[in-house]
Amino acid sequence: MPETLIKVDLTQSAYDNEMVHNRWHPDIPMVATVSPGDDFIIETYDWTGGFIKNNDDASDVRDIDLSIVHFLSGPIGVKGAEPGDLLVVDLLDVGAKPESQWGFNGFFSKQNGGGFLTDHFPQAQKSIWDFEGLFTKSRHIPGVRFAGLVHPGLIGCLPDKTLLDTWNTRETGLIATNPTRVPGLANPPFGPTAHMGKMTAGKEGAAAEAARTVPPREHGGNCDIKDLSRGSKIYFPVYVPGAGLSMGDLHFSQGDGEITFCGAIEMAGWLHIKVDLIKDGMAKYGIRNPIFKPSPITPNYNDYLIFEGISVDEQGAQHYLDVTVAYRQACLNAIEYLKKFGYSGAQAYSILGTAPVQGHVSGVVDVPNACATLWLPTQIFEFDINPSAAGPTRFITGDVDMPLAPDLA
Amino acid sequence: MPETLIKVDLTQSAYDNEMVHNRWHPDIPMVATVSPGDDFIIETYDWTGGFIKNNDDASDVRDIDLSIVHFLSGPIGVKGAEPGDLLVVDLLDVGAKPESQWGFNGFFSKQNGGGFLTDHFPQAQKSIWDFEGLFTKSRHIPGVRFAGLVHPGLIGCLPDKTLLDTWNTRETGLIATNPTRVPGLANPPFGPTAHMGKMTAGKEGAAAEAARTVPPREHGGNCDIKDLSRGSKIYFPVYVPGAGLSMGDLHFSQGDGEITFCGAIEMAGWLHIKVDLIKDGMAKYGIRNPIFKPSPITPNYNDYLIFEGISVDEQGAQHYLDVTVAYRQACLNAIEYLKKFGYSGAQAYSILGTAPVQGHVSGVVDVPNACATLWLPTQIFEFDINPSAAGPTRFITGDVDMPLAPDLA
Amino acid sequence: MPETLIKVDLTQSAYDNEMVHNRWHPDIPMVATVSPGDDFIIETYDWTGGFIKNNDDASDVRDIDLSIVHFLSGPIGVKGAEPGDLLVVDLLDVGAKPESQWGFNGFFSKQNGGGFLTDHFPQAQKSIWDFEGLFTKSRHIPGVRFAGLVHPGLIGCLPDKTLLDTWNTRETGLIATNPTRVPGLANPPFGPTAHMGKMTAGKEGAAAEAARTVPPREHGGNCDIKDLSRGSKIYFPVYVPGAGLSMGDLHFSQGDGEITFCGAIEMAGWLHIKVDLIKDGMAKYGIRNPIFKPSPITPNYNDYLIFEGISVDEQGAQHYLDVTVAYRQACLNAIEYLKKFGYSGAQAYSILGTAPVQGHVSGVVDVPNACATLWLPTQIFEFDINPSAAGPTRFITGDVDMPLAPDLA
Amino acid sequence: MPETLIKVDLTQSAYDNEMVHNRWHPDIPMVATVSPGDDFIIETYDWTGGFIKNNDDASDVRDIDLSIVHFLSGPIGVKGAEPGDLLVVDLLDVGAKPESQWGFNGFFSKQNGGGFLTDHFPQAQKSIWDFEGLFTKSRHIPGVRFAGLVHPGLIGCLPDKTLLDTWNTRETGLIATNPTRVPGLANPPFGPTAHMGKMTAGKEGAAAEAARTVPPREHGGNCDIKDLSRGSKIYFPVYVPGAGLSMGDLHFSQGDGEITFCGAIEMAGWLHIKVDLIKDGMAKYGIRNPIFKPSPITPNYNDYLIFEGISVDEQGAQHYLDVTVAYRQACLNAIEYLKKFGYSGAQAYSILGTAPVQGHVSGVVDVPNACATLWLPTQIFEFDINPSAAGPTRFITGDVDMPLAPDLA
Repeated sequence: MPETLIKVDLTQSAYDNEMVHNRWHPDIPMVATVSPGDDFIIETYDWTGGFIKNNDDASDVRDIDLSIVHFLSGPIGVKGAEPGDLLVVDLLDVGAKPESQWGFNGFFSKQNGGGFLTDHFPQAQKSIWDFEGLFTKSRHIPGVRFAGLVHPGLIGCLPDKTLLDTWNTRETGLIATNPTRVPGLANPPFGPTAHMGKMTAGKEGAAAEAARTVPPREHGGNCDIKDLSRGSKIYFPVYVPGAGLSMGDLHFSQGDGEITFCGAIEMAGWLHIKVDLIKDGMAKYGIRNPIFKPSPITPNYNDYLIFEGISVDEQGAQHYLDVTVAYRQACLNAIEYLKKFGYSGAQAYSILGTAPVQGHVSGVVDVPNACATLWLPTQIFEFDINPSAAGPTRFITGDVDMPLAPDLA
Repeated sequence: MPETLIKVDLTQSAYDNEMVHNRWHPDIPMVATVSPGDDFIIETYDWTGGFIKNNDDASDVRDIDLSIVHFLSGPIGVKGAEPGDLLVVDLLDVGAKPESQWGFNGFFSKQNGGGFLTDHFPQAQKSIWDFEGLFTKSRHIPGVRFAGLVHPGLIGCLPDKTLLDTWNTRETGLIATNPTRVPGLANPPFGPTAHMGKMTAGKEGAAAEAARTVPPREHGGNCDIKDLSRGSKIYFPVYVPGAGLSMGDLHFSQGDGEITFCGAIEMAGWLHIKVDLIKDGMAKYGIRNPIFKPSPITPNYNDYLIFEGISVDEQGAQHYLDVTVAYRQACLNAIEYLKKFGYSGAQAYSILGTAPVQGHVSGVVDVPNACATLWLPTQIFEFDINPSAAGPTRFITGDVDMPLAPDLA
Repeated sequence: MPETLIKVDLTQSAYDNEMVHNRWHPDIPMVATVSPGDDFIIETYDWTGGFIKNNDDASDVRDIDLSIVHFLSGPIGVKGAEPGDLLVVDLLDVGAKPESQWGFNGFFSKQNGGGFLTDHFPQAQKSIWDFEGLFTKSRHIPGVRFAGLVHPGLIGCLPDKTLLDTWNTRETGLIATNPTRVPGLANPPFGPTAHMGKMTAGKEGAAAEAARTVPPREHGGNCDIKDLSRGSKIYFPVYVPGAGLSMGDLHFSQGDGEITFCGAIEMAGWLHIKVDLIKDGMAKYGIRNPIFKPSPITPNYNDYLIFEGISVDEQGAQHYLDVTVAYRQACLNAIEYLKKFGYSGAQAYSILGTAPVQGHVSGVVDVPNACATLWLPTQIFEFDINPSAAGPTRFITGDVDMPLAPDLA
Repeated sequence: MPETLIKVDLTQSAYDNEMVHNRWHPDIPMVATVSPGDDFIIETYDWTGGFIKNNDDASDVRDIDLSIVHFLSGPIGVKGAEPGDLLVVDLLDVGAKPESQWGFNGFFSKQNGGGFLTDHFPQAQKSIWDFEGLFTKSRHIPGVRFAGLVHPGLIGCLPDKTLLDTWNTRETGLIATNPTRVPGLANPPFGPTAHMGKMTAGKEGAAAEAARTVPPREHGGNCDIKDLSRGSKIYFPVYVPGAGLSMGDLHFSQGDGEITFCGAIEMAGWLHIKVDLIKDGMAKYGIRNPIFKPSPITPNYNDYLIFEGISVDEQGAQHYLDVTVAYRQACLNAIEYLKKFGYSGAQAYSILGTAPVQGHVSGVVDVPNACATLWLPTQIFEFDINPSAAGPTRFITGDVDMPLAPDLA
């Protein structure tokens, strides 16, 4: 086996592991150096550093301090990498830690981050998913079982100072438009919970300006693209000498959009990756954001039931070519459908967040309505979910549901 | 062969064919009646009724009066269909008219409808695509050839009066927020160019309130979903007795989003369909919009190059979880990439509008950035478009481009 | 539409159409000439020239004189084609004749040709399959419906005299080893029923030596490869100046092996093809038999139930690495399985002959047993055919079966 | 992680591990007992027990004593399993041993077992394949790299005494027809190298009659079916109380037929499996051989170049509907083709034995010629192997080849 460059001990706090960091800043020191053509192993915490537990109590999802996420392993320095290059990353394999064959999914309370459907599911809930080799199922959501499309939710290179400043300027600008909104419009830098890896000199100042890891940005980062799965190949823009590749937030599986926010099926694990360079690749190919090629080994569930949504919201208000609204309607339509088979709304929501659901931008020019589609794979269900003249059979009896932790007064 | 219920003569004006209409209204008379279980053929005009010609001059795209579209064949009455039912439609086959083995794609002038990237491509351009059996290619865009994912862009049942009123209220309300915007936020009812099919009594009043056909709505309509392809099965809500199914706007192929607006590869053609009913299906399955199952016969291009976009616009402005903005960035990124191989921007834009490109809602909770991905199938190109250390080869020499018709002063 | 070079009138005898022939001989005159790059339409009879009828009586399958088959359309001359070239054929589209939207499948009596399982099904039976656009189903075999993988069973170029002599020598040699076997080991030349197209001078002599069309040979010919489907691209060896491409024996669908022999779902129809040349391609690529690339548009049924067979025959006799015996066992195993759901053996046999079943050479070195597998797509059934602890449900009630015509005394 | 029921130490002789055996006999003692519903890990040796080394010398392939194979882990007893049941085995995951990330492929000398093309490649050669996560490549065969379709070549339940006797009778009967043939027609029982696991009492007698593991048989066994890959589900006939499931001969990847015999890409590794029962399943479903469902996670290489072969052998001799001969011709045709790109014949042969090549029984009724097809995935090559008018480019320079060990005098 190739060398494991970064190890994580799940019994140890992520803050005590200096090969881990939870902010983006150009001055975070490299923790290891590799050469183009090298392959190696990187271990990672789950995105919360172990805060969410494998139990039937959602209070951890309710109570988490989200300023601590995401715990990333890295940065890895690549010899010869210079700003303007493309760092080519082969995800040769990705998996769960052998001692931790489970993951979690949930939705945050609207008071603490929420999720895509937070107005409909405003309180914290979670589901636990057990892994059986390449497959997963949940004790909280009967009747579904599927192969994982395992992937890192978050991966990318360190920004340079200019890019970091751009991020901070535009995001704090957005926050300023509605600073008291709950949940917040964005997450500003926050020094107290920053983990700056091996940084010592200048750490406090850097932590105060380091970018939070929540959003995807120009460098990739927290893209939460389910198709960056094991076997895929990614081309990342390089901004600092040595590139500084970091990664984490591993998902056993996720639906397009990661609508549940907390999140996909979140897990601790490892990546076997290989790196290479395309010198001056950003200019050669006109690259602004990462590009990638999907894996030849993705689960081939190809029978779908597809739900449409348009950009008229739940209250009937008309939005102009708004795919976000349209996709929300498609999600809500799918949830209503699944409830007819006996699922609770929360269970249905969780299925959409975890299973290899596709979300397509189907029509985006027919004013004033965008049209989005949600593709639900039928083969992940242990019963037939297709429509028929007889109407749905309630295969799900409702005797189990997802734990809920009510907001504290 | 099954009976052809509606015929169209491409040499005749669509306005002279009373089995065609271009507005939605509950009182448009049925032009034929079928029973559940029947299969039959419907012919259709292209969406413009023949206005766009197979030539090398884009002035027709510039000059079209968009109040005339879309010319739909129908409505077909289905015996026994009642409000609340689901009308099950099997698209047994769809094709181009034998005498019209070509289609068009283009972008409207920003003065006359525009398109998804109208700020970047503000003037009218078009490309003509010739069909070779199951495949298509364009004399205006060298180096690409692909199998068609043939489908109707527009299909659905007549609204009832309540639904029609809802549409008009919300869309005119949107227009009122910025009535002079160019292009307009939506299209209000407009009597003068309405084609109300066989309607005689009350025609003028109905035409003045009939809904325009541009947007997708609750009943389906102009969803422009490329995956409603031949072989697929759709479940439509029924609002009026007899259902009143109409269809048109056939596409030989389209990319997710139909970003070029004029449009996909637009063509005149025919559909072989079969209808059935699920009585009271809307309540049984909790249906608000159509649902469907894709075809087992879709082209299996499965090697993709995937472009990411985030919800920071071209000017660097931050948008909050806006998938529309994110998808626009992914499109722009793909266009820049393709230009490195020699394509003009317009050609690249047209490829994204016509080829079986996927647009995914990849991340929609990581505040403040949505992440969208555009999946470009590599196998449609006659050369290798993958990145390499050597950089791109300009296979496209630039000696042909898409005709452009400058705005008139 | 492109020009139709060869037309067939299904109400006319194939013998009266001089653009048709039913033997292979280098001197059969070309009926049309095309240039590399041309595309055109060719119509064809079904392989029996209309002998098998759309009815519920299998006596035609029992009584057919098999020396009349196959009626092929051609030969087409290609300008510039010379021996040693590769003729590149794009199957741009293939379909049934509009006035003949049905096909037949059956097994011959063991007295008249038999089939792969003739010892188990020794008498003539047939099933009729109706086409519904891209799909087919049979009134004689309930519970199955699938999309067609439409293809020509027979296509190839004229042999030269040397190749023809080789064929005759080796096949008559085989016959001589057991000349009275029923069914025969091969079919020798037979002048009386030969149709030599436009040939006049020397016709009688040529007919007496012309090769029968039954077997696949070096030039391709009756390969009955289901994957030469519409959208595929084939590279044929050229033996005579002008190539002389002929084709026929269209199938709406077929399982690997065409085990029922009469045959796949046999139909009259048309092909839209395009031709090109690779000069001296046989030597350049070391080609002895045709090679091809499959279509990007094949039905994506990908959930299979797979049956194994080994080279121990039904009587328990051991054969040495004999894939033919192994595949026969896999077929018999699948038939026994399907009978548990209520199908008659004949119906199950017919499903294996018509549906897009795969037959794989799975193991061919583990002495003394070859292992073959038969892949039955589960999605073609209207009920669940997967094994379960509860055992099979007999969805098929047995009230319809395939017509059988007993051998005459 | 689930419990590892059987461990193997690759530094220890397989003969010293009593949880391993290399013969089939009903009296081999169970080494562990599980219940229906349990999942667990089984480790295995490579099929030769470590005889073939990761080096550049093929003398081990030449010199191996094939009476020692295959070293299987098991048998596992399943509570409640009785003769006539079906043992349902989920292959939840399969992988290489972490300390042994490589595999071998080769062909035996014709003097010692040979292979499918032994007349063309009569001497021992081997290639070594390194694993990079989910992918593999070989230092002996440049230009190919592919994802593994990892699977056990050999898995099945213990025979009862009746079945064992049947095997011995029919195989020794075959041998008797030509007892001096090289290579032999089959492998008779051979006590001296038998490894009977934990058996003590009666061991010598049992070893003398125990069946060799080479051929696939009614129980499954050495089927070498590449599609029994991780994620698949298999239904095995049960013959003895407790079932007695054994497995081994893991392959990282294999082409249909395992034509190279030594073998696929052979490796030591582990399986994570789950077992269940269908009581009386053999009768319920008419089962004679195992049936299975393939994995939803197979590599989706779907662009193929397909080679045909017919049942006329290399010397021009005519065989009657012999798929084995036809598949051999398809293999030889593919090898000639690949040689045009610079591969040695041995390298091409090895690619066909290791890559996810499909072998189809395409036509098996068109007397006298069977037609078989070999499907070569084009996406595994690092260069374009499609035919073109320009002819092939020799991407492979021939500076490396597979080690060959000449037969000793």
